[in-house]
Amino acid sequence: MSDRETTRVFVDCDPGIDDAVALAYLAARPEVEILGVGAVFGNNTVAVTAQNALRLLELYGRPEVPVAVGAERPLVQAPRLAEHVHGGNGLGDVELPDPKGEPVAESAAELLVRLARENPGELDVLAVGPLTNVALAIGLEPRLPQLVRRLVVMGGAVEVAGNVGSHAEANIVNDPEAAEAVFAAGFDLDLVALDITMKTVATAEWLDRLKEVPGDRAERTSAFLDFYAEFYKGIFGLRQCAMHDPLAAAVLADPHLVTEAFEAPVRVELTGTLTRGMTVADRRPRPRTDERRACRVVTSVSEDAFLDLMLDALR
Amino acid sequence: MSDRETTRVFVDCDPGIDDAVALAYLAARPEVEILGVGAVFGNNTVAVTAQNALRLLELYGRPEVPVAVGAERPLVQAPRLAEHVHGGNGLGDVELPDPKGEPVAESAAELLVRLARENPGELDVLAVGPLTNVALAIGLEPRLPQLVRRLVVMGGAVEVAGNVGSHAEANIVNDPEAAEAVFAAGFDLDLVALDITMKTVATAEWLDRLKEVPGDRAERTSAFLDFYAEFYKGIFGLRQCAMHDPLAAAVLADPHLVTEAFEAPVRVELTGTLTRGMTVADRRPRPRTDERRACRVVTSVSEDAFLDLMLDALR
Repeated sequence: MSDRETTRVFVDCDPGIDDAVALAYLAARPEVEILGVGAVFGNNTVAVTAQNALRLLELYGRPEVPVAVGAERPLVQAPRLAEHVHGGNGLGDVELPDPKGEPVAESAAELLVRLARENPGELDVLAVGPLTNVALAIGLEPRLPQLVRRLVVMGGAVEVAGNVGSHAEANIVNDPEAAEAVFAAGFDLDLVALDITMKTVATAEWLDRLKEVPGDRAERTSAFLDFYAEFYKGIFGLRQCAMHDPLAAAVLADPHLVTEAFEAPVRVELTGTLTRGMTVADRRPRPRTDERRACRVVTSVSEDAFLDLMLDALR
Repeated sequence: MSDRETTRVFVDCDPGIDDAVALAYLAARPEVEILGVGAVFGNNTVAVTAQNALRLLELYGRPEVPVAVGAERPLVQAPRLAEHVHGGNGLGDVELPDPKGEPVAESAAELLVRLARENPGELDVLAVGPLTNVALAIGLEPRLPQLVRRLVVMGGAVEVAGNVGSHAEANIVNDPEAAEAVFAAGFDLDLVALDITMKTVATAEWLDRLKEVPGDRAERTSAFLDFYAEFYKGIFGLRQCAMHDPLAAAVLADPHLVTEAFEAPVRVELTGTLTRGMTVADRRPRPRTDERRACRVVTSVSEDAFLDLMLDALR
């Protein structure tokens, strides 16, 4: 894996406070070409997350990027949202102006498939919400895993506790069937799970540094994160927040930040009473042989370098 | 928790090589009164494990201890055995003389219930096989968790990989329904899971020290362990073996050896396609409130002291 001149990216997201920071991270990098953004239900309804995606691309200086509305519900189960984490408007109840643009006519899955076909072997996909749109795209185009260069997923909890259940992480448990379809499909896949995101946090000191950065982008983002940090204070006992989605963006755009990962085929438990939505990997010293393509589960990153890059993105 | 003058113990087991060493560990201690032994299917059929229990009590100098035959199969599922781990005779294919004694007429569950009633608040139970006999005993006497002082279970894999599946440990997965009944019953319960047993190993150096110990007990036990170490060589890549059951015996008889544990209610996943038999604990920083009585999951022990005591037991 090496850092590249230009990276063409499709971002599937449900903004979402940390989704906002992930978009900021990519939007600030001249070498990253965001070819399209898909919105999905998750942190809020897809109607809200699509509008937020438009608002955020305008805030972060990429108003030309097409935004497509995606799935409004999971493949099988009933939807659940996360307003207690991200606020009633999905962005920490911080008011942003209504977007000037509007979503394109294609669905998120159709846009992803079209972009993958137009850029065979060249498109990287960052999926930081429930995996419903990506699963639907595989349904439309079974060769998607071969057409796409690389898929980076924020989701799951492989060797650590979950966040919405003892073993369930929000993005995966919000559509376990879709996630299983994606893990089964054979992508070149980096998994940025709670294993790394819960130990890669924006500290109080970092949040204070952000407050000193002038300009609208930093100011608004700081306001989003104040809301988020308040939620995480209830978990960590400290004013700090897990940077789930921006870390996944960093793994996509700056793969040199990854210092450790293990490779394992990952499956999603679909039927467990206590474990539905769990990301299951065989971590025995001698795991059974497995036909499923292994993904890379990130376990260590250069945290300081990541936090600096995230701050740079908001200057 | 403090070490006590005399400990009255019921041992439920499926000998089994490490079961043998657990019996040796307890039999060697004058302050430990073994009131009874229950045999259960597991490492071999219950017919074989009961005969082995008699043989081992005779070898280790406790021929007077009553041995009761217990369950020949799990509560619900079909049985599976582990001859590849423990040999065709359950004791590493090492020949021992036929036992002089024979099993008592009571079943293991009946013997456990009678001993608990006769020694209210005084009986400690060590369960190092599938939990079928203990679950049946709860069915016969629902007050068993209150009658028994303490239950030490070898089983499960809470925050680490399993040994017969990616998340399944043999004793629990051999009867998940029984295990769930036992975890739900409200015992004062120490769980000695793979979390601690896979990192508390008899090293090649320890196995060599054992070879120097004179006498029939040490010689036979060394022969059992040679078979076991050969199996574990395929897992660890080294000649060493996990000391699952003797470590549980040590936690019962020498609680001062435990240097770290966490408390958590534990449940057994019964319906998962990938996770059936998994011991599930909520390890989030703020776990949900839970009515189930927490058990202590051992995570650290004084390893050198334990290995010394285990060697002393075989002198």
